[in-house]
Amino acid sequence: MTLQTPDAGVKANPLALSMGEPAGIGGEVTLKAWLRRKDLLTSFFVIDDPCRLTDLSNELGIRVPIAVLDKPDQTAALFSNALPVLSVGRPVRTTNGVPTKDTAAAVLESIETAVRLTQAGDAGGIVTNPIQKEILYSAGFSHPGHTEYLAALTDTQSSPVMMLAGHNLRVVPVTIHVSLRHALEQLTSDAIVHAARVTYSALRRDFGISEPRIAVAGLNPHAGEGGAMGDEEATIIEPAISALANDGIHVTGPLPPDTLFSPDLRKTYDAAVCMYHDQALIPIKALEFDQAVNVTLGLPFVRTSPDHGTALDIAGKGIANESSLISALNLAAKMAERRQRLAD
Amino acid sequence: MTLQTPDAGVKANPLALSMGEPAGIGGEVTLKAWLRRKDLLTSFFVIDDPCRLTDLSNELGIRVPIAVLDKPDQTAALFSNALPVLSVGRPVRTTNGVPTKDTAAAVLESIETAVRLTQAGDAGGIVTNPIQKEILYSAGFSHPGHTEYLAALTDTQSSPVMMLAGHNLRVVPVTIHVSLRHALEQLTSDAIVHAARVTYSALRRDFGISEPRIAVAGLNPHAGEGGAMGDEEATIIEPAISALANDGIHVTGPLPPDTLFSPDLRKTYDAAVCMYHDQALIPIKALEFDQAVNVTLGLPFVRTSPDHGTALDIAGKGIANESSLISALNLAAKMAERRQRLAD
Repeated sequence: MTLQTPDAGVKANPLALSMGEPAGIGGEVTLKAWLRRKDLLTSFFVIDDPCRLTDLSNELGIRVPIAVLDKPDQTAALFSNALPVLSVGRPVRTTNGVPTKDTAAAVLESIETAVRLTQAGDAGGIVTNPIQKEILYSAGFSHPGHTEYLAALTDTQSSPVMMLAGHNLRVVPVTIHVSLRHALEQLTSDAIVHAARVTYSALRRDFGISEPRIAVAGLNPHAGEGGAMGDEEATIIEPAISALANDGIHVTGPLPPDTLFSPDLRKTYDAAVCMYHDQALIPIKALEFDQAVNVTLGLPFVRTSPDHGTALDIAGKGIANESSLISALNLAAKMAERRQRLAD
Repeated sequence: MTLQTPDAGVKANPLALSMGEPAGIGGEVTLKAWLRRKDLLTSFFVIDDPCRLTDLSNELGIRVPIAVLDKPDQTAALFSNALPVLSVGRPVRTTNGVPTKDTAAAVLESIETAVRLTQAGDAGGIVTNPIQKEILYSAGFSHPGHTEYLAALTDTQSSPVMMLAGHNLRVVPVTIHVSLRHALEQLTSDAIVHAARVTYSALRRDFGISEPRIAVAGLNPHAGEGGAMGDEEATIIEPAISALANDGIHVTGPLPPDTLFSPDLRKTYDAAVCMYHDQALIPIKALEFDQAVNVTLGLPFVRTSPDHGTALDIAGKGIANESSLISALNLAAKMAERRQRLAD
């Protein structure tokens, strides 16, 4: 990666970063990402409790100056000297590693503010720190996860699609957080077509690829070997591929899952549409563990997140790695700039 | 890899290499492996039709001198000057890319001779070139595959176990060539325990690891996340892990499949026992495409094979890559030497 100062980077609005679960590593990686601001392509502000971040910075001994914002448009001017924080409007007090319902309202408020500011054009896109869903449920949150919450906040009708994007590989799981048994039941031609179409549009608009090449994985070993090891390739996946080809999309498959991620094959596509969670996540985490970014496609704005959880077990220890957040911020910056250029 | 002349390498008997499907790339990669003999740790002889190999070498323009053996023990002395060939006893005539039943008897004879010589101590181990099962079936062959055939030839009672071994990762799938749906049905605690025990013994005896560390993958995303995404971790995998731990085996799991193959986790185990074909094959082919070797554990002798098929589509074109066969020969050489040392 080329090191660039923020103002030599992309020309998008600053990014809005949500606080995430305050008992996790979100605060720490946020502070550390600001310390590495020369590696960032654009500036960002975090929506959090400024006092909490000041205390955390002292506790970790990493001394990050905090600038409390009145408005997001002050971000760029302040960013080189201090971490810009937009107050979440509530005091956030927590113990590292021990999530509490008391902070749930602030966690949700941070996300909602990020969405509102992005939709108003005051932020170029949203980067979210990881949340602890169980705590939010116990405080009345009713969505299966972060992504569905964002879709609901913005009245997005069709399901968003998850992409994991690394430097050399992009993968899109068609089924996600369900057991493998349920993934087999949930897999339909329509779901594959939807995921591939949303991926295709995003590759064109947000990734700047004019003729995206989509590879569709088989489900079974050797993609079923002509029906000898499963028939879902013939009954579910091939009809989806035909429909996509009829749309004029450059699509190949169903491809044997085990060779699809080998070095030579990786060069032949811009994204691999995968049939289940681990078919997508195993190769990207094997190949690009700290570089992979979680991107939500199909929302009305740019949204990325680091590809890790709240990591409660190491919260407050000073050992959390900010690389994935930096990758998430930089990918969001590039995507936001492309959208802004298209809108101008 | 350190380049070594054969006699500076390991001190095992020569390896027996079977011809495999003659219409595929087996002959070509065999000739090319001999040309790279300085990269090999020990010598080998191939059981084939010497005339066919001479013709093939001329056709490919790679000029490999052929030495027809009377007995395997001439191999080492001849190896630096010519490719040692033990005649399969039948003329083998075929067309590249077009398998025919007419050669099926020779293909089987080559494997049977390799087994007989290895069991008699005339060869240190067996390396097999890929076969085309459909052709053998039509000629009366009745085994599901190569491995089961070897088990039957040697009266091996318990099922052999397949390992894919690379430089930095070894994986063992518990279920193999069945649809993903059938893999879910076939997965049992007993099957996991069997695969892990055979793996443990092989790591000690053939890989020289005195205290092998076995990692057992979960089946579902995030290893089921405490039952939220599938219960096979609790009902099938955890009981197997307990049984293995009771044996005194250093075993961990069930581990989230997507992080199991990340760089940091790969350092924590000597082999990963995987629940289905692609859980094992996706990461090893993503990370070590040309280096991975297929090893059959649980046979009475050492057996490896290159991790590719007959590649009928490129047979005779001169573009087949011999790297995987070289890796298979070298791993077999190391394993055979360890066994021989233990037997001495």
